[in-house]
Amino acid sequence: MVRVRLHIVYRGSAYHGWQIQPRDRTVEGELTRAVQTVLGLEAPVKVQGASRTDSGVHALGQVAHFDHESPRKLWDFVRALNALTDDDICVTRAEEAAEGFHARHSARGKIYRYRIWNHRFNHPFLGDRVWQMGSQLDLERMRQAAAKLVGTHDFEGFRTTGCDSPTTVRKMRRVEVHTRGPSMIEVEVEGTAFLKHMVRIMVGTLVDIGAGRMELSRIDEVFESGERRRAGQTAPACGLTLERVFYPDFPWAEPAPELGGAYLPVGLEA
Amino acid sequence: MVRVRLHIVYRGSAYHGWQIQPRDRTVEGELTRAVQTVLGLEAPVKVQGASRTDSGVHALGQVAHFDHESPRKLWDFVRALNALTDDDICVTRAEEAAEGFHARHSARGKIYRYRIWNHRFNHPFLGDRVWQMGSQLDLERMRQAAAKLVGTHDFEGFRTTGCDSPTTVRKMRRVEVHTRGPSMIEVEVEGTAFLKHMVRIMVGTLVDIGAGRMELSRIDEVFESGERRRAGQTAPACGLTLERVFYPDFPWAEPAPELGGAYLPVGLEA
Repeated sequence: MVRVRLHIVYRGSAYHGWQIQPRDRTVEGELTRAVQTVLGLEAPVKVQGASRTDSGVHALGQVAHFDHESPRKLWDFVRALNALTDDDICVTRAEEAAEGFHARHSARGKIYRYRIWNHRFNHPFLGDRVWQMGSQLDLERMRQAAAKLVGTHDFEGFRTTGCDSPTTVRKMRRVEVHTRGPSMIEVEVEGTAFLKHMVRIMVGTLVDIGAGRMELSRIDEVFESGERRRAGQTAPACGLTLERVFYPDFPWAEPAPELGGAYLPVGLEA
Repeated sequence: MVRVRLHIVYRGSAYHGWQIQPRDRTVEGELTRAVQTVLGLEAPVKVQGASRTDSGVHALGQVAHFDHESPRKLWDFVRALNALTDDDICVTRAEEAAEGFHARHSARGKIYRYRIWNHRFNHPFLGDRVWQMGSQLDLERMRQAAAKLVGTHDFEGFRTTGCDSPTTVRKMRRVEVHTRGPSMIEVEVEGTAFLKHMVRIMVGTLVDIGAGRMELSRIDEVFESGERRRAGQTAPACGLTLERVFYPDFPWAEPAPELGGAYLPVGLEA
């Protein structure tokens, strides 16, 4: 039995998120169907992802694993999976995982990037990859609020009510507000692990603070009360991209901003 | 009577090119309908574009003009036109043109950019903005071929048979082959004016030479013979973007590669 690790890039617009659903089209569902077709087995295959991205969320660096006994070459796997999935999903690499590897449980951290197109008009090329917003945002206030999110906190108030995680303490290594050009704002979040909708609620709260609708102290109030209702809006899914999952043994390419993300997806560099 | 100059960005994938057609959806057709709606006139309006981009070709810097007598403020025009067109078309600015201005005839030059995603797999985020090609290309050969295209030549052999231009001598100021990251090749062409399909046939010929299917000397043969059949393939429309039109009096923003083009569309910078 071999455990295979996959690296996956996808544009999430046409999918109901990562997690397999009985009826809706999902990334895990498409990959599972493709892996099953390639292996030609009757036994069901489980494709385990690192992150269960929401409906409409994109990924430059999703990671998943599955087990198989076939002697098929890994490179043939990659080509077959890409032939069997639509063009908005790309498996960039497959490799044999180390003993005991688990795409979700072995992850040591993740980077998400959230893009805000801060302009009164829609961007014709980036419509489904950004949150378009015409109102002016105070970047300095957003950065001050972002700094409050860094560190180890109880993020109970920054998750959706549908989140079933038994623990809510998480560590954010970085929460940074960057600009790229005069109209693009990017919020880059690096943390050990995340709760459901956590990045989107954090970004929505930063935006509400940046727009002057909330005080900076609101961050502290949410942490102290643990109440979701005190935090800001949930930023729309389309602006969010899973950029990178960290593992102890992981190879990474250098940043490549010209591809629309800070990190070149592994395997798309060659 | 006021002549209004429009600056337009569009993702061309859903349009049968710029030029208005009786049945098919085109960018000029959509804008004409929108302008007509805003002006509320019974007399037909002509929206004159600088470049008649092909079906599927994109624009970061298209320019057009139309005439009107309405006292409506130009800024209201822009907002109304964007409200009346789909999100893949964005009018970024409207201004009163100088006496005698004509979007097509006053143009002093244009820049086109052609993107080749030189990778064996499709890029999930850039599928409809690049020509995806897995075979290896010799960039040095492509650059040598590109250098031969620079200058004033008779481009008779580099136009489609459907081109009705009475003259075929054109001046190319620059034909440059760049790389952006390890897998993206960009051909940037700056010239005074272009024949129908000229950029796409030039790029297709560079690719055929880069792939080793044609000799470098083929460029000279096409110039000498004027025969389309001696030139290379026509590169697909989806890889092409009209980046910029030059006019004697024109304001331009600085390059902004983070928006997916070398030039920030005028009006999207603020």
